Amino acid sequence: MSEYTPLMLAAISAPPATAAAVGRVLLDSGADWSMMNYGGMTAPEFATLQEEKSELAELLRGHEEDFYPVTNPQGYCLIINISKYDSGSDITLSLAERQGSDRDVDRVKQIFERLRFIVKIKKDLTAEQLDDFLHEIKKSRDLAKHGSFVCFLMAHGSHDCIYGKNGVPCEIRNLTEKFKSSVCRSLEGKPKVFFIQACRGSRRDRAVARSSREQTDEAGAPVYNSAIRPAEGDFLLCYATTPGSAAFRNIDSGSRYVQTVCEFIEKYFRELDLITIMTKVSGYLHKNPVQVKGGLYHVVPQKVDQLSSLVSFDPDRARKA
Amino acid sequence: MSEYTPLMLAAISAPPATAAAVGRVLLDSGADWSMMNYGGMTAPEFATLQEEKSELAELLRGHEEDFYPVTNPQGYCLIINISKYDSGSDITLSLAERQGSDRDVDRVKQIFERLRFIVKIKKDLTAEQLDDFLHEIKKSRDLAKHGSFVCFLMAHGSHDCIYGKNGVPCEIRNLTEKFKSSVCRSLEGKPKVFFIQACRGSRRDRAVARSSREQTDEAGAPVYNSAIRPAEGDFLLCYATTPGSAAFRNIDSGSRYVQTVCEFIEKYFRELDLITIMTKVSGYLHKNPVQVKGGLYHVVPQKVDQLSSLVSFDPDRARKA
Repeated sequence: MSEYTPLMLAAISAPPATAAAVGRVLLDSGADWSMMNYGGMTAPEFATLQEEKSELAELLRGHEEDFYPVTNPQGYCLIINISKYDSGSDITLSLAERQGSDRDVDRVKQIFERLRFIVKIKKDLTAEQLDDFLHEIKKSRDLAKHGSFVCFLMAHGSHDCIYGKNGVPCEIRNLTEKFKSSVCRSLEGKPKVFFIQACRGSRRDRAVARSSREQTDEAGAPVYNSAIRPAEGDFLLCYATTPGSAAFRNIDSGSRYVQTVCEFIEKYFRELDLITIMTKVSGYLHKNPVQVKGGLYHVVPQKVDQLSSLVSFDPDRARKA
Repeated sequence: MSEYTPLMLAAISAPPATAAAVGRVLLDSGADWSMMNYGGMTAPEFATLQEEKSELAELLRGHEEDFYPVTNPQGYCLIINISKYDSGSDITLSLAERQGSDRDVDRVKQIFERLRFIVKIKKDLTAEQLDDFLHEIKKSRDLAKHGSFVCFLMAHGSHDCIYGKNGVPCEIRNLTEKFKSSVCRSLEGKPKVFFIQACRGSRRDRAVARSSREQTDEAGAPVYNSAIRPAEGDFLLCYATTPGSAAFRNIDSGSRYVQTVCEFIEKYFRELDLITIMTKVSGYLHKNPVQVKGGLYHVVPQKVDQLSSLVSFDPDRARKA
């Protein structure tokens, strides 16, 4: 927040005949229309106050529309972490404890609370419990007041599913489609962002040596190969890896992907939109392969992006109610 | 191009002790490090000339690395348009001529030549001819000199394939994987961008009335449901639609998606990176559903994004050789 930005001054005191031209120059040189003064007013709001500045107001609203609106609170941030798998049945035999994943939960919680999300954590759910929990959230009355929806899914996985603690697969498509606008009107036109830390297969650039501090979220259970199909717009799915590939997790420090996502969101949430931040995450991971005993392993995250506007997590962009 | 930007002035004449701090303020307020003066020099280049400004030079290089380097020419832009399908065999019975698609070819050619790409057009290939053509391009010696690779695939399609003129499906994964860096070293670390105008199924928001000017790129042929799997980084696949859904084409004006992509690239290539442009395309299509006799149909484009830097198509960013 600042006293008055150049854009606000243009909106307040530039002559009506030239206000729009001045505004265009400022915007082209990177001026931020979303800045608020100490009174919580933005340049578009100042421009709207004066009828003869409708051209500038329209110009500023055009830029405003590049972003989904931000609310306070921003929305739910669900953290689903399935770490301890049932033993004793055939299907869970190969699903080892996902050591280090609690570090990811702590870090995500820390960042998203700071960004004024309402953080809800669920651990070690069965497939059915996960399905029920997401359905309950989807029906929640608060959702309509929220500007966005974020969900971290962290578990063992395979192709397009993650595994519940009982080893039963949940198709990611079925989880995300609960929130599509045709069945969840309260999130219509709002960004629905999923971060998925799970293997999507077992492919790696080379074999991982044993007794290392790195594990993969790989599972030997049956492969489900159906396509992700969020039927409608405004979805963003951020995967730790490409289809068919393994995801890495360090048993001391947590998942490389989740930790890097948190670090970069924390660093850039004020200045960059989410997609650009996530491209920086990919660039960082590209330059910094995972080191495990015996070699280096490249990880290529994947975004499946059906957004129709830019996403900002900056809580200061929230308009007053 | 301009005489000197504030960043260049900081690089040239700010006191070494404060140059980096000034540079940071300018960058944070949106200054464009990539601007060239009339002599073709950029701020990072000016900063590199003075040894005592290494901190500013490093800062500017950090921003420079947000983008993939641009070359002149930028690279190949392949336009594959399969419009007329063989008749007479069972499999091509349902694959009608893709009327209007020549308008798309013309428009893409116009834009990408302006952006200093080498445009190559291939029409009405069989599945085998398409495979051979892409393989030949992949082996091309020029590729190593190019900074990026763009390919438009426009055809009838289904789930994760497009159909050759003989009705034989080509998996999109097989086409894109020819250019992954493990088998195409000359494109290693460079953006590989595919635009896919084809149906991925027959789902629509409602049934299309007959005898309209809009057609869909739908085909009744067998469904291939395998996952897209560009094994490595730096791929961007831009689909006209989500998995399972139909894509629209107007028999007079061409495809809504391709035409909008061209319009927005033309409008924004100097100021925005490709992903942000494509998000604007999605926003526009979201607000402007396709009108056909009997109703309005929403189209949700999808990006599958494994880029590790931002992509610019601005030919003026090309460094001199």
